[in-house]
Amino acid sequence: MEFFQAISFEKAKESIIHSLRHIRADQEKVDLPQALHRIAATHVIAQENLPPFSRSTVDGFAVRSADTFGASESAPSLFLVAGEVSMGAAASMTLQPGEAVIIPTGGMLPPGADAVVMVEHSEQPDDQTALITKMVAPGENVVMKGEDLSIGTTIVAEGQKITSPHIGALAAAGMASVNVRKKIFVTILSTGDELVDITATAEVGQIRDTNSYALAAMLEAYGCEVRRWGIVKDRYEDFSKALADALSYSDVVVISGGSSVGTRDYTVQAIKGMNQAQLLFHGLAIKPGKPTIYGIVGSVPVFGLPGHPVAAMTICELLVKLAIRQLQGHQEASSRHTLVASLTRNIPSAPGRDDFFPAKLFKQEGQYRATPLFGKSGLIHLLTEADGLIHIPSEKSGLYEGDKVDVLVMT
Amino acid sequence: MEFFQAISFEKAKESIIHSLRHIRADQEKVDLPQALHRIAATHVIAQENLPPFSRSTVDGFAVRSADTFGASESAPSLFLVAGEVSMGAAASMTLQPGEAVIIPTGGMLPPGADAVVMVEHSEQPDDQTALITKMVAPGENVVMKGEDLSIGTTIVAEGQKITSPHIGALAAAGMASVNVRKKIFVTILSTGDELVDITATAEVGQIRDTNSYALAAMLEAYGCEVRRWGIVKDRYEDFSKALADALSYSDVVVISGGSSVGTRDYTVQAIKGMNQAQLLFHGLAIKPGKPTIYGIVGSVPVFGLPGHPVAAMTICELLVKLAIRQLQGHQEASSRHTLVASLTRNIPSAPGRDDFFPAKLFKQEGQYRATPLFGKSGLIHLLTEADGLIHIPSEKSGLYEGDKVDVLVMT
Repeated sequence: MEFFQAISFEKAKESIIHSLRHIRADQEKVDLPQALHRIAATHVIAQENLPPFSRSTVDGFAVRSADTFGASESAPSLFLVAGEVSMGAAASMTLQPGEAVIIPTGGMLPPGADAVVMVEHSEQPDDQTALITKMVAPGENVVMKGEDLSIGTTIVAEGQKITSPHIGALAAAGMASVNVRKKIFVTILSTGDELVDITATAEVGQIRDTNSYALAAMLEAYGCEVRRWGIVKDRYEDFSKALADALSYSDVVVISGGSSVGTRDYTVQAIKGMNQAQLLFHGLAIKPGKPTIYGIVGSVPVFGLPGHPVAAMTICELLVKLAIRQLQGHQEASSRHTLVASLTRNIPSAPGRDDFFPAKLFKQEGQYRATPLFGKSGLIHLLTEADGLIHIPSEKSGLYEGDKVDVLVMT
Repeated sequence: MEFFQAISFEKAKESIIHSLRHIRADQEKVDLPQALHRIAATHVIAQENLPPFSRSTVDGFAVRSADTFGASESAPSLFLVAGEVSMGAAASMTLQPGEAVIIPTGGMLPPGADAVVMVEHSEQPDDQTALITKMVAPGENVVMKGEDLSIGTTIVAEGQKITSPHIGALAAAGMASVNVRKKIFVTILSTGDELVDITATAEVGQIRDTNSYALAAMLEAYGCEVRRWGIVKDRYEDFSKALADALSYSDVVVISGGSSVGTRDYTVQAIKGMNQAQLLFHGLAIKPGKPTIYGIVGSVPVFGLPGHPVAAMTICELLVKLAIRQLQGHQEASSRHTLVASLTRNIPSAPGRDDFFPAKLFKQEGQYRATPLFGKSGLIHLLTEADGLIHIPSEKSGLYEGDKVDVLVMT
């Protein structure tokens, strides 16, 4: 077996990003509602002003603000009521000095007016007359034309994940469809002679295929399309054929399982046996996740994940999702997904290695606290009880009670 | 118009929870992969032990730990290699004192063995002999039968949202399907004579229907099925007919828009005009979101949301999602979704009112900092630039730079 030194978390991230620097998912145009949580493939620029006209933000009287100068409860200013603006209609009249026009919330400000007096600050002794009891400043109670989005404003930048507020802004700007990156198609191969599918009866010595279900769920929640290929037997020929099949239609291939040295050897051999294959790392200074394999075949990144469920899910969170972001040109910092918490107890850790511990979070005095859940690696109940993963960077030899830690929330 | 006093955020939450206390979404059985992010309708209890047999966590030699007593590099213990455990097969031999059995990671521990020595701590001068250079404790490098999940353990509790680690644990336990709550069907009615659909050309005085798209996106991201009913004209008869239609097939109805007093009156009248209708509040001591309406018709909660996009989305986040959690018996605390940050500047606020400000987050010295984005309410660009909403509780009259705040992250 070729010798690979375990590389650091930072180097692994660099290696993945570098290997995918020329590969980008295709674009596709989707209807606005389908654009939610997709990655914008281009800048989306406002082609119109929003609002398209100056609008009142209250029910009241549109006026020239200068005409309200000095108005008060004790000395109201007198206005001639020159008409009324209807919702959804153009304001037809032009306001003359001393005139006021009745306007509803959202109504179009008539030409000549520059502010709106709230109905609460007015009296109407008769249909023709309004008494204004409060001064208004220019622009008061009005959203000016283009004040929300003006022509040329970037509504969503290339590489941003489209959120529900973006959907609102795009609707407001009349964008009925959006160019986004195609979803990443991930195929998960399960390896291991001891594995049986969840619907099968596990004989003595066999266990059920846990990881492919958990990994598929994580990646679907992250916006991927996922195919679980099924269980491949630990034979080089079977494995190589299955890998070639998965590579032919996938954007990313994840090989799950194969904790034993023998299976890892098959995985490495099979990757290297493909056309245009490059094995980039084998072994990480990350706990859990040491036996991780990464390579690229043509334009398809291939991950060999550890067999222990906690290790597999940790590496999926840290590195497979990084590859997916890179393929989609997704600019979001991963720091968006972390919480900051203070530790409830000391955690030992080896320097020179990035450690990740499942942890339970709770709030105390308005702050998050994190309790690490210790246990043998590979116990999935640790993850189901956890709210996230604590990260201990490689330069630290453990952390102390009260130390601030980043917690990656797992969904 | 009937007089309603603006009620507090706390009272509004209590009112919603109380009004829905006897209403619960139906259950349905779904295949395991479809259970992701659904709400468990019952406790899911492990029916088998996991692992179903004691397994090695390393490649090495299964031994009786007592036989390694005193073993070291300088004085290795001698063992007879009695055989080999194959992956996925039952361990057939029973270990005798002084014997070792070759075992792969994940292999079944043979009867008689209670620990595994890593291959790195052994030498094999010939096929029959193993020299062990390190002592092992009972249970070392072994996951005992049932150590991860034992029969009777709760894998997912009723009311929990099923995460990807849960999917893994359920797969491990052989649960091919899960009982979950049915998705909540929400219909969104848009009101306002000034509204046109996003595909239409907006004439002068008209604006596009922004909120129904943004709200639909938020609620779909929260796991609901959403129908956008379309735009209803501001006429009592039209509105009442549309509401009756929506009520006939929805679990929740959201009325979006209608910022003017006139439209709000129609909304209130129409709700009260339905059979078995109860108007529960109209007016909230929340900014933004004051003109919120809430009632229940039969078993269907009905929200009338403010017309300003920021206010509509804020109330959807705070109260509509609360109703959805309640209908699904979802036990998750909303605090799971908040980050803690320190303010970069002072924020004024009126006591007696819960205030929510869009804010931008960044990390500084390992902590989140939040910069409130000030601007006229109703400007959607504030939300697209924000990472979340800062909450200023009603008992505070503003917050100071450096104060810790909860930030609700909007997706």
